[in-house]
Amino acid sequence: MDLNTVKSIYRSTADYANKEVTLGGWIRTMRVSKNFGFIELNDGSFFKNIQIVFEADTLSNYAEITKLGVGAAIIVKGLLVETPEAKQPFEVKAQEIAIEGTSTPDYPLQKKRHSVEFLRQIAYLRPRTNMFSATFRVRSLIAYAIHQFFQDKGFVYAHTPIITGSDCEGAGEMFRVTTLDLNNLPKKEDGTVDFSKDFFGKETNLTVSGQLSAETFAMAFRNVYTFGPTFRAENSNTARHAAEFWMIEPEMAFADLEDNMEVAEEMLKYIIQYVLDNAPEEMEFFNSFVDKGLLDRLHNILNNDFGRVTYTEAVDLLIKSGKKFEYPVSWGIDLQTEHERYLTEEIFKKPVFVTDYPKDIKAFYMRMNDDNKTVAAMDLLVPGVGEIIGGSQREERLELLEKRMDELGLKKEDYWWYLDLRKYGGTRHSGYGLGFERAVMYLTGMSNIRDVLPYPRTVKNAEF
Amino acid sequence: MDLNTVKSIYRSTADYANKEVTLGGWIRTMRVSKNFGFIELNDGSFFKNIQIVFEADTLSNYAEITKLGVGAAIIVKGLLVETPEAKQPFEVKAQEIAIEGTSTPDYPLQKKRHSVEFLRQIAYLRPRTNMFSATFRVRSLIAYAIHQFFQDKGFVYAHTPIITGSDCEGAGEMFRVTTLDLNNLPKKEDGTVDFSKDFFGKETNLTVSGQLSAETFAMAFRNVYTFGPTFRAENSNTARHAAEFWMIEPEMAFADLEDNMEVAEEMLKYIIQYVLDNAPEEMEFFNSFVDKGLLDRLHNILNNDFGRVTYTEAVDLLIKSGKKFEYPVSWGIDLQTEHERYLTEEIFKKPVFVTDYPKDIKAFYMRMNDDNKTVAAMDLLVPGVGEIIGGSQREERLELLEKRMDELGLKKEDYWWYLDLRKYGGTRHSGYGLGFERAVMYLTGMSNIRDVLPYPRTVKNAEF
Repeated sequence: MDLNTVKSIYRSTADYANKEVTLGGWIRTMRVSKNFGFIELNDGSFFKNIQIVFEADTLSNYAEITKLGVGAAIIVKGLLVETPEAKQPFEVKAQEIAIEGTSTPDYPLQKKRHSVEFLRQIAYLRPRTNMFSATFRVRSLIAYAIHQFFQDKGFVYAHTPIITGSDCEGAGEMFRVTTLDLNNLPKKEDGTVDFSKDFFGKETNLTVSGQLSAETFAMAFRNVYTFGPTFRAENSNTARHAAEFWMIEPEMAFADLEDNMEVAEEMLKYIIQYVLDNAPEEMEFFNSFVDKGLLDRLHNILNNDFGRVTYTEAVDLLIKSGKKFEYPVSWGIDLQTEHERYLTEEIFKKPVFVTDYPKDIKAFYMRMNDDNKTVAAMDLLVPGVGEIIGGSQREERLELLEKRMDELGLKKEDYWWYLDLRKYGGTRHSGYGLGFERAVMYLTGMSNIRDVLPYPRTVKNAEF
Repeated sequence: MDLNTVKSIYRSTADYANKEVTLGGWIRTMRVSKNFGFIELNDGSFFKNIQIVFEADTLSNYAEITKLGVGAAIIVKGLLVETPEAKQPFEVKAQEIAIEGTSTPDYPLQKKRHSVEFLRQIAYLRPRTNMFSATFRVRSLIAYAIHQFFQDKGFVYAHTPIITGSDCEGAGEMFRVTTLDLNNLPKKEDGTVDFSKDFFGKETNLTVSGQLSAETFAMAFRNVYTFGPTFRAENSNTARHAAEFWMIEPEMAFADLEDNMEVAEEMLKYIIQYVLDNAPEEMEFFNSFVDKGLLDRLHNILNNDFGRVTYTEAVDLLIKSGKKFEYPVSWGIDLQTEHERYLTEEIFKKPVFVTDYPKDIKAFYMRMNDDNKTVAAMDLLVPGVGEIIGGSQREERLELLEKRMDELGLKKEDYWWYLDLRKYGGTRHSGYGLGFERAVMYLTGMSNIRDVLPYPRTVKNAEF
């Protein structure tokens, strides 16, 4: 259908004033009297509603319209009239209203405040509320901003595989993928499951990271990124963990840890600027109703260089602070969220990169520093969240990488192609991972990962 | 590192002429004599190589450089000199060459022609060849063009779930997702597997389509699209089937079948124009070495309106053609690739939408036409491929949808939220699915889906 959009009316009001418009949308609220009524219509194109005024004298189906329930879909033809004296800047004086789809009285989103917990139970309807309309529109814009940022820089988007034939990514517990009939499993002579009969002829899992694959592409295209779903089968029932989430993993050849941090900082500022520019109404909503300090915090990020501190310095700062933490601080510990937040919120009061972590708390592929104790890792900590990005320079020296794998008991034959990259024109290279949902939470102030995923998958929950 | 890129030198040569440049890249070929040598360097930023000239008089490490193998990584500092008389438009006269990473003599990509079958076995290296460098760069550009197309129109990108709690999407065989220990399965009293002990507390699978979820978002945002991985556990060992592939599924409220076709046609033309504009060198390569008619075919599409024909008319045309098909044609059959290609290649000689298919060969959710025999479906057929897009107007009338589900024996309680959409302000709506890899094949001329996926997953194959 040829419809005007509420968004374009808001953005270019002068083009529409005193002209006929046709809108299709859903009734958010309606007030009626004997001779006229008001509808708040949302057409999906825009966060805000538009007011429709309709009169018994004009509409032959006036009585029928007044009986429509909240949520009903209508098509309105009418005149756009500016109303500078009123609360809303303009309204549509309806000439015709056609009923596209009615709504029954049990429609769950009647006009009142609903808890996010209730809305999770009706996740298929919650995008029709202000909070989730804003969240999922901003989520979409952040995704696009990320693509735009990397594509404008010439990065190649690599679709690394979701089903993986090895469990050697090592970033967490995995989900098995199989077509075997679990009630009738093929067995080997020793009684164990015969995975040679499975779809792929071997055991397969859902990926926990595309990084190792991305490195193969970086050695051809120099700058690449992934953006796809990743999975963790961890029994973590927290506000920050989901079993299925999306991740962005840039990987850059000829890039060291410093280059890595520069790209991460530029990217984060780019997506913040993008949503401020492209979703001002939604961001204003979040700032008013979800997280009062949000806009200040985001502007603070845009206007400041991120801090840099080594892990060793950070541990000293935490100890010297005298602050009592639940987990005591000493060199060698993995920083907890409480430590991360104290560093970024209290000490630096802005985002800060912590670098050069002890090798024992970081992954095998991170590049060994000359001290032989720390690796060229970097985590970006941000106020309100803690860690949002984790990355490193990768170990490009074959002997050192093999030595580290031996120390950790990793089977080198499982990584033959990864090791080969170091034999065939390997370069210094770096990359990081951005948890997409964490970024959405950070930019919107939404505090539970279940509320930034359309249909979250968590322990004991795969509804819809 | 601060490096110049070969791409920007090609695109803005005048800015670099007679200036010092620094490049990092990989040696594709090298020719050496006693006093000077030539390197074809590829830096990953661009399809084409750049020629490096280096001399014994200039380089202190000349001997070492001449011993580098194909594939080695180097950093070159030198003067960009235009060479209008030579084959290549410019070259770099090296002042310094630093060795970033050597390459061993067993490097598999020595200068000779390799079969695609061989290259599949070294999928981690094939992006370093011309053919796969072109393929994966164009793949990345198509992905971005799709986002750009929909975002510019205000569509919201919805990340529909990958792990699904129901098998009711009905589009094909599914992969099971589980964390149960297959060698020690929990059992119920009746001896069958107790899925209440599984991670999600029930049986879960990998999605075959995001459409039903996308419909829920379309009823809030009007225009939405998905772009994510989908899975089919079908034992199809063909050049067109992969177990894991990416799909784009727009879904539009207030849109009928005609609107649906208009968006599909506009989208396909948009992405073709985008790759022609942004990857002219790669497209020229495909046209010369992969598919001689490619550019003609793509321009033909840009310059013509797509055909429209009903299924019933199409069947008549096929019968009247007198052509002998392997599968005989009669009203009611599902069109085979041979029929589809004959229609688009021989009869229409351009892309053609076939509409209004018999209800019995289409999915339950497609909108019943008034004849009660056909549904408001559309498939887009393109020369060289056959079906590339499949879509429909969706049945928005609750009674008709329920009737159809009853006829097909589908359990309505599994679809409660999908049916609810028809109760709560349901609108006419339409959408389609574009198989991303099919689109990449179509735009590049690459004929095997294994060669447009970074690491293809097919029957008995999940390598890398």
